[in-house]
Amino acid sequence: MLELRLVQGSLFKKVMEAIKDLVTDANFDCSATGFSLQAMDSSHVALVALLLRSEGFDHYRCDRNLSMGMNLGNMSKMLKCAGADDIITLKADDGSDTVTFMFESPNQDKIADFEMKLMDIDSEHLGIPEAEYQAIVRMPSNEFSRICKDLSSIGDTVVISVTKEGVKFSTRGDIGTANIVCRQNMSVDKPDEAVIIEMQEPVTLTFALRYMNSFTKASPLSNTVTISLSSDLPVVVEYKIAEMGYIRYYLAPKIEDEDEEPKPGVKNERD
Amino acid sequence: MLELRLVQGSLFKKVMEAIKDLVTDANFDCSATGFSLQAMDSSHVALVALLLRSEGFDHYRCDRNLSMGMNLGNMSKMLKCAGADDIITLKADDGSDTVTFMFESPNQDKIADFEMKLMDIDSEHLGIPEAEYQAIVRMPSNEFSRICKDLSSIGDTVVISVTKEGVKFSTRGDIGTANIVCRQNMSVDKPDEAVIIEMQEPVTLTFALRYMNSFTKASPLSNTVTISLSSDLPVVVEYKIAEMGYIRYYLAPKIEDEDEEPKPGVKNERD
Amino acid sequence: MLELRLVQGSLFKKVMEAIKDLVTDANFDCSATGFSLQAMDSSHVALVALLLRSEGFDHYRCDRNLSMGMNLGNMSKMLKCAGADDIITLKADDGSDTVTFMFESPNQDKIADFEMKLMDIDSEHLGIPEAEYQAIVRMPSNEFSRICKDLSSIGDTVVISVTKEGVKFSTRGDIGTANIVCRQNMSVDKPDEAVIIEMQEPVTLTFALRYMNSFTKASPLSNTVTISLSSDLPVVVEYKIAEMGYIRYYLAPKIEDEDEEPKPGVKNERD
Repeated sequence: MLELRLVQGSLFKKVMEAIKDLVTDANFDCSATGFSLQAMDSSHVALVALLLRSEGFDHYRCDRNLSMGMNLGNMSKMLKCAGADDIITLKADDGSDTVTFMFESPNQDKIADFEMKLMDIDSEHLGIPEAEYQAIVRMPSNEFSRICKDLSSIGDTVVISVTKEGVKFSTRGDIGTANIVCRQNMSVDKPDEAVIIEMQEPVTLTFALRYMNSFTKASPLSNTVTISLSSDLPVVVEYKIAEMGYIRYYLAPKIEDEDEEPKPGVKNERD
Repeated sequence: MLELRLVQGSLFKKVMEAIKDLVTDANFDCSATGFSLQAMDSSHVALVALLLRSEGFDHYRCDRNLSMGMNLGNMSKMLKCAGADDIITLKADDGSDTVTFMFESPNQDKIADFEMKLMDIDSEHLGIPEAEYQAIVRMPSNEFSRICKDLSSIGDTVVISVTKEGVKFSTRGDIGTANIVCRQNMSVDKPDEAVIIEMQEPVTLTFALRYMNSFTKASPLSNTVTISLSSDLPVVVEYKIAEMGYIRYYLAPKIEDEDEEPKPGVKNERD
Repeated sequence: MLELRLVQGSLFKKVMEAIKDLVTDANFDCSATGFSLQAMDSSHVALVALLLRSEGFDHYRCDRNLSMGMNLGNMSKMLKCAGADDIITLKADDGSDTVTFMFESPNQDKIADFEMKLMDIDSEHLGIPEAEYQAIVRMPSNEFSRICKDLSSIGDTVVISVTKEGVKFSTRGDIGTANIVCRQNMSVDKPDEAVIIEMQEPVTLTFALRYMNSFTKASPLSNTVTISLSSDLPVVVEYKIAEMGYIRYYLAPKIEDEDEEPKPGVKNERD
């Protein structure tokens, strides 16, 4: 028996929007500790990892570990039927091949339940080792989103360069070039608007903008984003989910002077 | 000579939006008692009936009965040119083959007149007998609209079941099933948000969602909608137009286990 | 060395939106007096003339006259990357084949520079003589925009008739006819909402609505528009740019009873 209740149900809706463009089908894993997902994007280049800890739910019951294969497009269709203020409960009986989403209006006058068939999905869980990064940038998520979108109108890739002074995002395309510099700034009135750089050494890496733009779909989940960079590792783009967990995206850098599509994201291409 | 003046001209615009997706061409009937329309939708499945009583107009002159055939797409194009606060006057000379819409800005500084050719349209006026219904549900129009839209993302038909406790809307599709229950609730602070059920006996009927979604285009005309159900009769979905009249949609229920398109709407299919 | 700085950078963005639908490529001319453009639309029917005087800029340096050929679609792509509150600086080195747009956020924490290649564009600068007009209409720019848009849903051309009482915009199409009259009105509380007519003699002229609709893209630049009409001259549709200059559009009238496309805009067709 599985029963996960979130009074602030809109969070489920935002999580779905943050994943569904990248991943078509995926297994959601439920255990006593939480509700999680790990999946490669459909072109096997980027990896997304989600964790919602059990203690963040208003009610959390998971009698035994469960892996539920879902089509994210269908799941998104159902979650779109929840009102912005609805309480959402996810339910599954042991051994059942369906999952039920229940939506309750705040005054309890309207109660909806949507039942979806589960799927069998092959997947291997990749171990992602903790790592030291050469540079970690924390910045407003809407700023990062805007930069990726703006650069996409000029070029296909972004070069991210971190120095003590700030982080530079650059691109180049047929119509010209663009450079956007965000200066380190820790003294702003609103901490969410700070740009904070923790740097061991300067680092410059290139990524496909297409994936970066998909990652920024998670912006409604958090006011800030953390970008962790090392020349030997995939970049980690992380959005914290308040008091519950996170959504993390991994993407391997493109090798300099390479114009090809990037290779699978969890291993660095030079390995 | 016909002259109908509505200071709150946006009402004409809303009426047009409520009809034009369902009906292509129709006769508008003018008499001393009011301005009315009765028309089948283009697939001859649903019926729409409009009444705007003469006393609801700011000025109403209709020297003799007149039936004006109009293309609703063209009429809608013209009414879209009226500002939200404009006074709208509909004019026609006796024997003329045109109708004129006059739009006056509130301060009278801008005056527009749009003249449209009338059409000859064959139509028979169906007598719709008053009937007793097994169940009548009154609920917020935006709630009903949202439910029809949400269920359409899952399935093609809606099963409406009314009991003393509430009204249930259900559907089923390839990706799963959905049930939405609205509980009877008469004690809310705002009467427009109440869900009120008058029931002689429980009733369960199935309808095509496509038509229901067209009917909900009338939601801007009224905060509440009334759904009258009987197993032997077409459902009536009614939106009252404050102090003027109503717009009513009729649709025959689908017979159980039938996956075909519904048949004409005024007669029940078992007749 | 060219360096043009506008603290209110959104003005550059609005100027681009006002031109880019009409003109594909154009030379921007910089001199000590200002930044200007004159270009025919791509079908060589309408002419657009822009002037931003040097004293309207927050910083203006132009060491020698410069004509910079730009693709307006690409320029627009770059300017869309500027934030609404950004300071915009346009820079070019002498002899360089590129131009740089620099965007600074108000708090200086984010600085972007976009570099675009310049083009060689053949163009001849047309002398536009000052002229006396039979009638000059000043009216709210959003009102004029709304009228052109509304009439476009009925017909392809607009007949503009000016008398002492007001200005009438008329059209005719398959579905009917439309007339919109704006009365002269100088006594309104808000001067921007006035309709003011300076008339030597009544004038009635016909224009293609397609071009008029393109001209109204400049409405965000000014609350009022001035329409100067003479039977022997192209109409001038002018939007003042506060304390800086103007954008003017020229279009030849269509000759009565002619259903063809209009001919080049600077000369009247009867010449």
